[in-house]
Amino acid sequence: MLGVCFGLTARAQQGNQIQEMAPGITRVTLGETDKFSPYNILQEKPKLAALNQLPAPGAEIDPKAIRIELTPRGAVVHIPLDDKEELYGFGLQMNSFRQRGMRRQPIVNDNPLNDLGYTHAPTTFYLSNKGYGIFINTSRYTTFYTGTHKQVKGNANINTGAGNGNGQSVADLYKNTGSQSGEVIVDIPGAKGGDVFIFNGPTLKNALQRYNLFAGGGALPAMWGLGVQYRMKADSKQQDVYNMAGYFRTNHIPCDVFGLEPQWQTAAYSCSYVWNPEHFPAPQELIDKMQGEGIHLNLWEHAYTSPVSPIYASLASSAGDYKVWNGLVPDFAGKTASQIFGDYHKKTFVDHGIASFKMDECDNSNIAMGDQTWAFPEMSQFPSGIDGEQMHQQFGTLYFQTMYNLYKKANKRSYFNIRSLNGFASSYPVSLYSDTYVHKEYIRMISNAGFSGLLWSPEVRESASITELCRRTQTAILSSQTVFNSWYLKSPPWLQYDRDKNNRGELLPNAKEAETHIRTLLNFRMSFIPYLYTAFAKYNREGVPPFRALVVDYPDDKNTYDVWDEYIIGDNVLAAPLADSASTRKVYLPKGNWYDYNTNKLYVGGQSYEIATGLDQIPIFIKEGSILPIAKPVEFIFSSKTIFSITCLVYGKTAGPIQLFEDDGTSFDYEKAGNYNILTLGWQNGKGNITRKGEYKKHLYNVEKWVNL
Amino acid sequence: MLGVCFGLTARAQQGNQIQEMAPGITRVTLGETDKFSPYNILQEKPKLAALNQLPAPGAEIDPKAIRIELTPRGAVVHIPLDDKEELYGFGLQMNSFRQRGMRRQPIVNDNPLNDLGYTHAPTTFYLSNKGYGIFINTSRYTTFYTGTHKQVKGNANINTGAGNGNGQSVADLYKNTGSQSGEVIVDIPGAKGGDVFIFNGPTLKNALQRYNLFAGGGALPAMWGLGVQYRMKADSKQQDVYNMAGYFRTNHIPCDVFGLEPQWQTAAYSCSYVWNPEHFPAPQELIDKMQGEGIHLNLWEHAYTSPVSPIYASLASSAGDYKVWNGLVPDFAGKTASQIFGDYHKKTFVDHGIASFKMDECDNSNIAMGDQTWAFPEMSQFPSGIDGEQMHQQFGTLYFQTMYNLYKKANKRSYFNIRSLNGFASSYPVSLYSDTYVHKEYIRMISNAGFSGLLWSPEVRESASITELCRRTQTAILSSQTVFNSWYLKSPPWLQYDRDKNNRGELLPNAKEAETHIRTLLNFRMSFIPYLYTAFAKYNREGVPPFRALVVDYPDDKNTYDVWDEYIIGDNVLAAPLADSASTRKVYLPKGNWYDYNTNKLYVGGQSYEIATGLDQIPIFIKEGSILPIAKPVEFIFSSKTIFSITCLVYGKTAGPIQLFEDDGTSFDYEKAGNYNILTLGWQNGKGNITRKGEYKKHLYNVEKWVNL
Repeated sequence: MLGVCFGLTARAQQGNQIQEMAPGITRVTLGETDKFSPYNILQEKPKLAALNQLPAPGAEIDPKAIRIELTPRGAVVHIPLDDKEELYGFGLQMNSFRQRGMRRQPIVNDNPLNDLGYTHAPTTFYLSNKGYGIFINTSRYTTFYTGTHKQVKGNANINTGAGNGNGQSVADLYKNTGSQSGEVIVDIPGAKGGDVFIFNGPTLKNALQRYNLFAGGGALPAMWGLGVQYRMKADSKQQDVYNMAGYFRTNHIPCDVFGLEPQWQTAAYSCSYVWNPEHFPAPQELIDKMQGEGIHLNLWEHAYTSPVSPIYASLASSAGDYKVWNGLVPDFAGKTASQIFGDYHKKTFVDHGIASFKMDECDNSNIAMGDQTWAFPEMSQFPSGIDGEQMHQQFGTLYFQTMYNLYKKANKRSYFNIRSLNGFASSYPVSLYSDTYVHKEYIRMISNAGFSGLLWSPEVRESASITELCRRTQTAILSSQTVFNSWYLKSPPWLQYDRDKNNRGELLPNAKEAETHIRTLLNFRMSFIPYLYTAFAKYNREGVPPFRALVVDYPDDKNTYDVWDEYIIGDNVLAAPLADSASTRKVYLPKGNWYDYNTNKLYVGGQSYEIATGLDQIPIFIKEGSILPIAKPVEFIFSSKTIFSITCLVYGKTAGPIQLFEDDGTSFDYEKAGNYNILTLGWQNGKGNITRKGEYKKHLYNVEKWVNL
Repeated sequence: MLGVCFGLTARAQQGNQIQEMAPGITRVTLGETDKFSPYNILQEKPKLAALNQLPAPGAEIDPKAIRIELTPRGAVVHIPLDDKEELYGFGLQMNSFRQRGMRRQPIVNDNPLNDLGYTHAPTTFYLSNKGYGIFINTSRYTTFYTGTHKQVKGNANINTGAGNGNGQSVADLYKNTGSQSGEVIVDIPGAKGGDVFIFNGPTLKNALQRYNLFAGGGALPAMWGLGVQYRMKADSKQQDVYNMAGYFRTNHIPCDVFGLEPQWQTAAYSCSYVWNPEHFPAPQELIDKMQGEGIHLNLWEHAYTSPVSPIYASLASSAGDYKVWNGLVPDFAGKTASQIFGDYHKKTFVDHGIASFKMDECDNSNIAMGDQTWAFPEMSQFPSGIDGEQMHQQFGTLYFQTMYNLYKKANKRSYFNIRSLNGFASSYPVSLYSDTYVHKEYIRMISNAGFSGLLWSPEVRESASITELCRRTQTAILSSQTVFNSWYLKSPPWLQYDRDKNNRGELLPNAKEAETHIRTLLNFRMSFIPYLYTAFAKYNREGVPPFRALVVDYPDDKNTYDVWDEYIIGDNVLAAPLADSASTRKVYLPKGNWYDYNTNKLYVGGQSYEIATGLDQIPIFIKEGSILPIAKPVEFIFSSKTIFSITCLVYGKTAGPIQLFEDDGTSFDYEKAGNYNILTLGWQNGKGNITRKGEYKKHLYNVEKWVNL
């Protein structure tokens, strides 16, 4: 009888199709591939020239070693796993970092609990420190067994773990003893085929670069997007926005973006996408006035379209068969819905100067809680043919593409906020965010996001103390997007961190002192922008994530395997944010020598130190031999006009060279017309030197000072 | 485009097959039904005569109103739902009771968290107080939306809920406002057909009776199974068992069953099913000696078969392709595995006098926690063709059938313990148990189990105090099976409730006082057996669960809709166990008058009372007009020999008639040969009367006394 059952498997194994997709990137398929797969949804072209620049990969994983089974229930993929491999990735994981010996389910969810693998960004991609990445090209709910199980195909005598003996507790008896199983097994119920992309390194970092370059290269946000975003209270009116702008400018607190929350619309939950004339009687005046203050406007919305929206009627035949908050779910997997939704947004908002959007609730209600049911159900059907399950996994990506395309066509760069993305999203200038708000998890997500070509914004809302507020702000300024989300706070949180008191207008007695701390931290963010922007350009051009876990850069250092609360920014900066009320934390520094940015004290790497960091200091370390360009802080970035006055901090006797990327910061001309410069900065014989190469005619940076530390 | 998508649905609706299965029971199908469905797995025959005795059903639900959609992803079933209906069921739910307005996923799981609907017993059955039950005949992972969503088929303008307005918190914004959607929607991914059994009432209780009678009638355990079960510490040796028997008998503490835990075997986790000669050098002597003491032996095992088991080699080709704790997973869905496993158990254990088994871990490792991976994965394949997902849902049932059939063939009744069952399991003499151990949830599961033809045993392990121990014991004696599970306790918990102290041999200073409390409670259990046994007989013959929620008997009383911490036992007893350290609790008494068993105080129903119950009292209430037969407690039940001396407690001036079921208590002769009696007891004019009808020649009960209260 066994023969009958396993016969199918045996036959299946032999028929794999193997296809070279790009340098170092191989696709292995068997059976019918999905119409709505991440690869089919991908709009961007691979950056082949950059891929060719990478070191030649070995066979870090042999495509022929991938085994795909097709069963009546779905597809199962088997990928070899050596005893000593470490695995990372699976999208924006919140509860875990080192991913071996687990069951991982990258399934989209708004509040991922219990370390199931549920996540805002369900990327079916993992990386091995052996120097390769595996992407399962599916939008279905997929389960990865990362070394927990082994199939005993045709030979039930294979020993798959010791079994447990005389445990004296349930935990003893049930502990997983099978983490050396020798394969990663991927379960894709409902699939009629297996579809695997292999990214060979030679290193983990190279494999990650290949993944990002294959998806079009990493995102390069509009430069103003790297400044500070402040989101207004939901019930703010036009005059409140003016007043808040006045507050920021009067007090010289940097701010580049204001976000308006649901009530800018006539209806929200679901959305009308129509300015509420009571709250905002003169939207164009608002947009123009803010532009005059150097503030870009970002509008909150979700895609669930209210019956009172002007586009409801035309969308009705291009929507799913279940509504959300009584709103239509546009079928963004088909062309019609994207066109209706996009055209309306273009003429109503983009053409009028709205700079970006915060795209909420494009994940799923928490399917790990039985009473959370706001979203459309998995059995939803859409005119395009996509089902609710695959639509959930891709809804953020499809929604984002709809909106991003409007800006691309207008040759305007932007920087968005979104609550869900799937795979191959590296090129999208958008940060993920969450409502979960556990600071340690927010830090962990900075490290994890980098493994999957994602950007993550650890939003600051209320806090329990000034200390917590400053610690959260330190994390925010050392992340891809610095956002204060005050949607339920009348005043900025540094004037009163307590939510109720804030809304009662009871400001802190020492509000001005707290404001000074925050100004100092935000000023650092502005000083850091040239370095950050260059890191993003490297992401765009070479696929190296601007924020990434230590293990990406130090794959041979075992001590980095489990470090999730520190990360590398750009080439030479290590961040180690403090999460709790403690004023010190343990920091592991990899091999090499490192300078504490605040004290300039030199530490020898390869070990951990207990480091103190003040509330208005910056928890970063600079690698010896590097040059950190620090700008005089501006209060906002005026695209194509702002010029950064830069001081080069030189760490060590010899340093550099380092690069700075220079363009207009706001259009796609760098890409379309090669309209950019590369500045190369070096330090030799006690003297700095600069070369500038490229086609961009203006200057964004003036290097004014060199300081040797 | 919409037409193309929904065309499939429209076509599908028209093709439903409607079939009458039994009186009041209708099956509605569309498409291909599953081979491994609960109905196909059901071995028992429906009790047609009893079904015909029930009041004629109306059309509580019209089979034509069931709508089934077949999509590329699976099957979706739509069932009408009135605005005022209340729903119950979905198997052994732990976290919830009233099931409307939820997403329910009855998926088998060993530690169901977060109220997803995950459960030890994933029965795809629910009941409505409108007087019907719906069973979805599938073993696939199924999701019920119980009034949360509505399909806007072909008309996206249908309003499906108000949407949310200006919430000031995420909880506000995301709360479910759609609980009046007008249908229950059932999502069955992977199914190629829909298969629905309708049980029309006319009442909820009648619908439940039909469900149980259709599955062969409720379980009638061996009478000794209703006594007390004590499970020995895992590392106990033969002499320890003798000593413990001595302790019970010397101290006159009732006990009918001893359970031996994993280490009775040469290997466990996974299992050898071979007596460990070091711990138990003379198993037959053990069995015989215990029989002499009136103690039946119950052996712990799970079905995962160790490489050192004598049946491993012959099972290897009839097992799944993933192992558990390095043990084979027998393919009980095929005949060979059941035969090998059953034959071995028959000749090694059943034939030698082993009375029952505790069948562990036949659920699934907690799929709501990412690091819990002990079980076989869902993508497992089995020679019979069943997949891992369906096998998980049915593994308990199939394993149970394998073991139960051995006893049926031997004409021996038993009473087992098991950790998972699926639908149509009403006739199985087995209680479910759990490791979760939250007392309130344990009480809730007594109420919930009755909705799905299940029995549940709230095991007592350690406690934090004597009070907790007594409260847990009170719950245990008022449940289907009274079990002290001391698998990690050297001495009985009443001698030392604290686990560590217990194992260090530090007994309580007041151990004898605690022992007295427990003896009193266990003696009540023994006194209660005639009443309980008769309730089980009614379950068997009429399908009325012996333990059931108040709403089953009082469907017109809205106050009962949410009462999960009280339940009805038999015809006339209401139990209201105390869960916490409080000495009083609020008890809702439905209409009618009720006597507190402990004080004989009379309460008028239709309202709640704060009631005090001592540690050695019994938290039950007796309905006015009823007779409660209370036996002189025996220490154990010697099948066909024990005779109960009964006092009839008469509650009210007129009372009865009530019945008592009488047979040998240990064989299936009551069923096969009609070898039983029905005693009818009445109270008229201040005098009791008894009539006895039937074929059973011996007497089990002697009514010796009548007390009018």
